[in-house]
Amino acid sequence: MAHIITEITRPSEEELALAKSVTPATIHEAQDRIGALDPAIKPVKPGLTVCGPAFTVRCTPGDNMMLIAAIGTAKPGDVLVVSAGGLQMQGGFGEVLATACVSRGIAGLVIDAGVRDGAAIRKLGFPVFSTGLAMHGTVKETVGFINHPIVLGGIAITPGDIVSGDDDGVVVLKREDITRICKAGQAREEKEEGIMQALRDGGDILELSGMRQRLLDKGCKWDTAS
Amino acid sequence: MAHIITEITRPSEEELALAKSVTPATIHEAQDRIGALDPAIKPVKPGLTVCGPAFTVRCTPGDNMMLIAAIGTAKPGDVLVVSAGGLQMQGGFGEVLATACVSRGIAGLVIDAGVRDGAAIRKLGFPVFSTGLAMHGTVKETVGFINHPIVLGGIAITPGDIVSGDDDGVVVLKREDITRICKAGQAREEKEEGIMQALRDGGDILELSGMRQRLLDKGCKWDTAS
Amino acid sequence: MAHIITEITRPSEEELALAKSVTPATIHEAQDRIGALDPAIKPVKPGLTVCGPAFTVRCTPGDNMMLIAAIGTAKPGDVLVVSAGGLQMQGGFGEVLATACVSRGIAGLVIDAGVRDGAAIRKLGFPVFSTGLAMHGTVKETVGFINHPIVLGGIAITPGDIVSGDDDGVVVLKREDITRICKAGQAREEKEEGIMQALRDGGDILELSGMRQRLLDKGCKWDTAS
Amino acid sequence: MAHIITEITRPSEEELALAKSVTPATIHEAQDRIGALDPAIKPVKPGLTVCGPAFTVRCTPGDNMMLIAAIGTAKPGDVLVVSAGGLQMQGGFGEVLATACVSRGIAGLVIDAGVRDGAAIRKLGFPVFSTGLAMHGTVKETVGFINHPIVLGGIAITPGDIVSGDDDGVVVLKREDITRICKAGQAREEKEEGIMQALRDGGDILELSGMRQRLLDKGCKWDTAS
Amino acid sequence: MAHIITEITRPSEEELALAKSVTPATIHEAQDRIGALDPAIKPVKPGLTVCGPAFTVRCTPGDNMMLIAAIGTAKPGDVLVVSAGGLQMQGGFGEVLATACVSRGIAGLVIDAGVRDGAAIRKLGFPVFSTGLAMHGTVKETVGFINHPIVLGGIAITPGDIVSGDDDGVVVLKREDITRICKAGQAREEKEEGIMQALRDGGDILELSGMRQRLLDKGCKWDTAS
Amino acid sequence: MAHIITEITRPSEEELALAKSVTPATIHEAQDRIGALDPAIKPVKPGLTVCGPAFTVRCTPGDNMMLIAAIGTAKPGDVLVVSAGGLQMQGGFGEVLATACVSRGIAGLVIDAGVRDGAAIRKLGFPVFSTGLAMHGTVKETVGFINHPIVLGGIAITPGDIVSGDDDGVVVLKREDITRICKAGQAREEKEEGIMQALRDGGDILELSGMRQRLLDKGCKWDTAS
Repeated sequence: MAHIITEITRPSEEELALAKSVTPATIHEAQDRIGALDPAIKPVKPGLTVCGPAFTVRCTPGDNMMLIAAIGTAKPGDVLVVSAGGLQMQGGFGEVLATACVSRGIAGLVIDAGVRDGAAIRKLGFPVFSTGLAMHGTVKETVGFINHPIVLGGIAITPGDIVSGDDDGVVVLKREDITRICKAGQAREEKEEGIMQALRDGGDILELSGMRQRLLDKGCKWDTAS
Repeated sequence: MAHIITEITRPSEEELALAKSVTPATIHEAQDRIGALDPAIKPVKPGLTVCGPAFTVRCTPGDNMMLIAAIGTAKPGDVLVVSAGGLQMQGGFGEVLATACVSRGIAGLVIDAGVRDGAAIRKLGFPVFSTGLAMHGTVKETVGFINHPIVLGGIAITPGDIVSGDDDGVVVLKREDITRICKAGQAREEKEEGIMQALRDGGDILELSGMRQRLLDKGCKWDTAS
Repeated sequence: MAHIITEITRPSEEELALAKSVTPATIHEAQDRIGALDPAIKPVKPGLTVCGPAFTVRCTPGDNMMLIAAIGTAKPGDVLVVSAGGLQMQGGFGEVLATACVSRGIAGLVIDAGVRDGAAIRKLGFPVFSTGLAMHGTVKETVGFINHPIVLGGIAITPGDIVSGDDDGVVVLKREDITRICKAGQAREEKEEGIMQALRDGGDILELSGMRQRLLDKGCKWDTAS
Repeated sequence: MAHIITEITRPSEEELALAKSVTPATIHEAQDRIGALDPAIKPVKPGLTVCGPAFTVRCTPGDNMMLIAAIGTAKPGDVLVVSAGGLQMQGGFGEVLATACVSRGIAGLVIDAGVRDGAAIRKLGFPVFSTGLAMHGTVKETVGFINHPIVLGGIAITPGDIVSGDDDGVVVLKREDITRICKAGQAREEKEEGIMQALRDGGDILELSGMRQRLLDKGCKWDTAS
Repeated sequence: MAHIITEITRPSEEELALAKSVTPATIHEAQDRIGALDPAIKPVKPGLTVCGPAFTVRCTPGDNMMLIAAIGTAKPGDVLVVSAGGLQMQGGFGEVLATACVSRGIAGLVIDAGVRDGAAIRKLGFPVFSTGLAMHGTVKETVGFINHPIVLGGIAITPGDIVSGDDDGVVVLKREDITRICKAGQAREEKEEGIMQALRDGGDILELSGMRQRLLDKGCKWDTAS
Repeated sequence: MAHIITEITRPSEEELALAKSVTPATIHEAQDRIGALDPAIKPVKPGLTVCGPAFTVRCTPGDNMMLIAAIGTAKPGDVLVVSAGGLQMQGGFGEVLATACVSRGIAGLVIDAGVRDGAAIRKLGFPVFSTGLAMHGTVKETVGFINHPIVLGGIAITPGDIVSGDDDGVVVLKREDITRICKAGQAREEKEEGIMQALRDGGDILELSGMRQRLLDKGCKWDTAS
């Protein structure tokens, strides 16, 4: 049953640049608030970011065999996106595999499990998004799937989708939506920058957001005192 | 039913200075170990602190309308204290609202939910105490309550109470108790500083704490070996 | 029933040096993937490490009396290993006790509960491994056990065992196994360093790990496309 | 500081009868969806119900002294409402205390901790709402508060408020709102019974709930196929 | 964006009968141990079972509008499969909607949230699989999706897939795999029945399972004593 | 490394009868409130009880090979006590293995993981104490340990110790303490029965427990009103 697909359809350079031009939270908003992975999946060091096509992996819990297979198969710029069964106490990725990833130019790792060698990975600066650090080792016994569709952190991911992460967590952007969503996201960020500048200049958030009128429309009562 | 009260009774300058003179943990101890919020509510960056009168907000889970209303209504130095229903995956406060808070001189935010734009908020240095970072967006549909009593992190809070937070978490101090509790806290911290100096000078913790006698009184048996 | 044993059998200088020469994750692997504490027990600041003989303490939840007794009894280099009942909201160790530990030369603290005064402890640099920070105070009422066997984070610990921790968490190494396990660990780390150098030089992880053959042997199918 | 208040203002017989005439979920809805305790607090046996005035107790975690004091002080029909600090592993109430409650005519117990002697309590049929069953014992060392305001399961409770529970969990109803809320609740239940009868008679839920029009108004698109 | 698809492709009568002929756990095993939803999703009463085609719904957390729309649209025998965002404290399905489901002949409900009116639903015997009981109400404000693909309990579900549940939880079986998997499952159950009969007749589990040889092959050492 | 020990030292008939004469909670109290497993480990059906010598097993998470080996090795009356790594989503024990246990006269199973075929096991009435029901299957690949000391639910267990469980959970009683602890437990239960009879006869819990005097001694203040 186990099956490795080595080739995936990746976004174009232009699409990738667009995806990198907006934050994960903006992508999430621009696509009607969907695609955000479980926020328990976070960078191993504040400030790390990742953005690239998903190279998907399905491992058996407690087994990192297919993760190694994927590192040896992925292309530079790919993001390894690994469904490992959700065990926070498991650390099936560490300094050796991180070194392999860096050497191959892999852009990052997103996994629903722990990783180990946290100090070394932080020093390498390789963008790992995981459920935390844990030292419990894994075996290499069970074959699985590479570049089949997976579910990770509650979100269905197809190989070649964009995964983009920062301190807020990771979002998935369907390959066919990249241009539309990212352009909408850019417009959103520009509008927000305008509002922020107005706020810095002393603007009133209730006016700028239209919230004063909205509260009145909804019948909210305002009083000076209780 | 929804209701906004715009004016609250705040502590005096002297009371506020007193509250800032002791740590949250000291306040908690000085008031007989009560008032500490659920420790899951933590600063978004180690080292951030907050201390000021509570400007209380009750939002519907998944809706940040009243939080925006509160930002536009609070006074400089106030701390927004937001009961949002406890959803860690929700990020209904981000860079735009943080910018609005900074512009208005708001002293900080304490919320039982996630916030987004973590990297930007950390850079701003605005003291946000939350259950973590998450990008999942909120709607602006449901009116609620501002400056009514709330429960947050297991603690009942009245508008104008002091909320004080650091890396250890957040404590609530009733407005009427500020002077009494903080003076007791100062005495406690002075006494502890004396003990710490004695320890640095080679003092014996068992004597300085009176614990050797206390252990003997309680019948604890001491042996050299098992 | 309560009972304090003041003397324990500690590893030799040579054994301790061996234990410090390998990482906790390596110790865990070298002893067949056992001994790792629940990964919820983590350093209060990234980068802190600890390694030394376990000076074991059993406290009643909500009571830090025996922890104080242990600080006054342990020897320089010992690691206080405290079974406190698993309450994350409890902060029964803070700046005063950390100062006492530093003055006595205690090597670190591992506890299955929270600690308080996080900012001060981080500044001191004293290696505390806990379930996090919390300010909720403890009483000093109930006598317990020092240097009896305990269970902590799911692992049975005998006084004098090595406890070694870093960002990945904490591992326990039985005193009688130190030399055998650490020498095996050193060999493992050397081998891994060789693999990492080969990877940096452009080596293929599938060859270096023998995984290509292993996948073929297990009947894994490879395809270019889906 | 510890303080016992023995007398509280209870609802009238009429108010109590009203409160018993509607389900906890109906009370919750009728008061604008507030007052529901954390749903982790559930009956120890499916089908148990409780309704009566809150006799509030604040215990130290791990200590049941004030719970015993409350059993000896409450009146027939009262519901003991105990803030015990949220420890699911604690069982500080069992067959002896349940027997005492039954003998005194106490109407039930609501506690944010575990209880023990589950088999015996189920046989007695005494309505206990807890976080589950656990055998870990408690001490009787720390005095606390009886009939002061408490927070339980995230809800602020004043002595004499109605607490009403069934399989869905427990709701709090402020004493001053009983008549207004329960009459609204009765109307709601009657309306729902009418809808249910219409449904049983073959009515269309989309018409009966007005949801078809509402969906159209909100611009929801309907298609036969994808 | 919101969109309702009213028609789905359902399995044939023969396929449905096959799916009902084996247990959910058998389906899970027969399809190589995939498809099991998060086991937190359980029947509201032990012994309830469900099996039928998935009629998928995506609701906004805290909003049950689309669930009502789905009840009015589904066909007899369908199972409502509702992605509601994972809030255990939410009870957006109760006696009225259960009555509507029974009247329409809907086969069951699977939802990643709580439901209310537990006592009434248990009495009705309508098979609800949820994260538990909770009374917290929902609004009817946000339009969503019906019969689009969803992720529920970590598993991707396409409308028309079989969902089958019992006390062990719920499994998803892709429509195209029904015959192959269920026939394999029947063979598996027959083989297991044979083993169980042999065990009841005094057979040796180590022989019947082939485990004695397997242990020897893997080098497991057997001793009489320690 | 893997190792099976087939013979253990069991308690005598008299000791076993003593252990069965008191409840698990009584054993826990009589031995100074130690030995209670994590209360998440509960019977699969209310009312099930188990009591017998521990036949200990250590499995790799996700692998039930050693559990099968243990079933084929244990003696009638033994209780299988299985450390499986704490995965609630794992169901590596079901109807076939339960049938094997019943045929061999095994007294029960205690495991820190889920089990499957809940409906069948409940019907069999075989006393299984687990973290719940789950269908996720296990492999049979990794050899482990039988009748070596283990840690389960936070408690260290030696083969031959008594494990005793009911609705309140499971307690461990060291073999060498059985007579002393159970006789103390019997005395405790007799005393409690006397108190309960006095309570049923109208006795005052404050007098019978000595709590009135104790509260006065500790300076608790009593008032009629607030």
